[in-house]
Amino acid sequence: MKIGILGLGLIGGSLGFDLRSQGNHVLGVSRRESTCKKAIDLGIVDQASVELSLLAAADIVFICTPIGLIIPQVEQLIAYLPATTIVTDVGSVKTPIVAGISPLWNNFIGGHPMAGNTDAGIEAAQRNLFVNRPYVLTPVATTPTDAISVLEEIVRSLGSIIYHCQPEKHDRAVSWISHLPVIVSASLMAACLSETDPEIFQLAQNLASSGFCDTSRVGAGNPELGVMMAQYNRQALINSLHQYRQNLDEFIDLVSQEKWLLLEDKLKLNQQNRPKFLE
Amino acid sequence: MKIGILGLGLIGGSLGFDLRSQGNHVLGVSRRESTCKKAIDLGIVDQASVELSLLAAADIVFICTPIGLIIPQVEQLIAYLPATTIVTDVGSVKTPIVAGISPLWNNFIGGHPMAGNTDAGIEAAQRNLFVNRPYVLTPVATTPTDAISVLEEIVRSLGSIIYHCQPEKHDRAVSWISHLPVIVSASLMAACLSETDPEIFQLAQNLASSGFCDTSRVGAGNPELGVMMAQYNRQALINSLHQYRQNLDEFIDLVSQEKWLLLEDKLKLNQQNRPKFLE
Repeated sequence: MKIGILGLGLIGGSLGFDLRSQGNHVLGVSRRESTCKKAIDLGIVDQASVELSLLAAADIVFICTPIGLIIPQVEQLIAYLPATTIVTDVGSVKTPIVAGISPLWNNFIGGHPMAGNTDAGIEAAQRNLFVNRPYVLTPVATTPTDAISVLEEIVRSLGSIIYHCQPEKHDRAVSWISHLPVIVSASLMAACLSETDPEIFQLAQNLASSGFCDTSRVGAGNPELGVMMAQYNRQALINSLHQYRQNLDEFIDLVSQEKWLLLEDKLKLNQQNRPKFLE
Repeated sequence: MKIGILGLGLIGGSLGFDLRSQGNHVLGVSRRESTCKKAIDLGIVDQASVELSLLAAADIVFICTPIGLIIPQVEQLIAYLPATTIVTDVGSVKTPIVAGISPLWNNFIGGHPMAGNTDAGIEAAQRNLFVNRPYVLTPVATTPTDAISVLEEIVRSLGSIIYHCQPEKHDRAVSWISHLPVIVSASLMAACLSETDPEIFQLAQNLASSGFCDTSRVGAGNPELGVMMAQYNRQALINSLHQYRQNLDEFIDLVSQEKWLLLEDKLKLNQQNRPKFLE
């Protein structure tokens, strides 16, 4: 099969490694010549170009650009494609992407591989990145079942666990487990930075340990990524934030009113339920 | 030196290992005969008893009971001690402990070794637990300097990094980096549990990954410990919670009002400042 990859970063590059090693002919497009060269040198792609026209020969194209570029790039790309080409993306938010592309391209299926690490760029690409990781597909009522089958077979070949859902349900689910934690964690770090007593502020830094390290991690990550997830999943994030605030207020009330048994009950519920969210 | 340890759990047991291996004579007291036997078998103490009177011979006594028992146990213990005996504790909150014990015992110094792990009990005790870890001492104006010097020398021998501060400053610092994160994290898990759409709830569980795992960890730990830290450090925690809520509201406002540049600025501040809190 001829597989196109538009955007040769961590995800695009890792896809190339795995799909090529399975015997597919992989065509890669990047905005930069140097990335094209690296992709060929590393064995990520068979052919690479800065021109979208290279992808005209592909049976299926994975759009692996930053989320803000997905729709504009697809708008340009489809001028080169026969109507039979399947197009899919790997963006971490699905509602606006699916709403923007579905009217333009019938053979489009939104996708989201839940894989990655803190590094970015083609140098961070690795083999078997998607093994045993969730991979969400968000076809809509009009998506051709043949196209879904082709994409599913490829995703299965990566070793991923496939989930199907509506774009809106995907976005609400990831707002809980991925986007809300960023703001929760960011607010923690920001609150600590507001301490005005220099002795206490210094002491807090000296005493901070694994608990603080873990809870503050995702709120102090890449600022551009944080803004992007808030922009693209804004409504689901706002809903989650309001729900969070309500729960926070309940905890504040329990502590203020010294309702220790109720506090213990709520903490017990957390302790019992967290394992469901872990692998 | 003769060193007494009252309460042979993770901290008390680990202290025993290190202090005994330095040639001190270690006297241990536990409420349970079986723990006394284990402490001797494991080589944690030289002598062990369920009777407080064993500690009459000690030059210094470490109180390593759960925080709620520290003051009541000291009240009983001092009946057996000569006035020269130094008493210290290892409780994670200092203001109420120091306020409760200082009037009873002049040679008392509040202490807090910032060490531990998720396991508890004498079986979890380990050698070198305190090496390179912070150890806070909270002497007050009336604490004899001789007593402070003796305790400091012992703490230094454990390999710990010593910090001195007022009990109130300790409690405000740990409310930022230890107690606030528990409630922040607990509210996240509780908010996720409030999702009423079963498909989204299941999907959130399936898609949750390292970011969610880290951010939800301390809020789903031992419920009894969570309640205890809230009870004993209630006022500092409430202050931190209000400050946190204000920062959360700012983030909610930035997202709601689509103030993306300001959001990015706040996230950049977090990214720049978090390394100060890490070792």
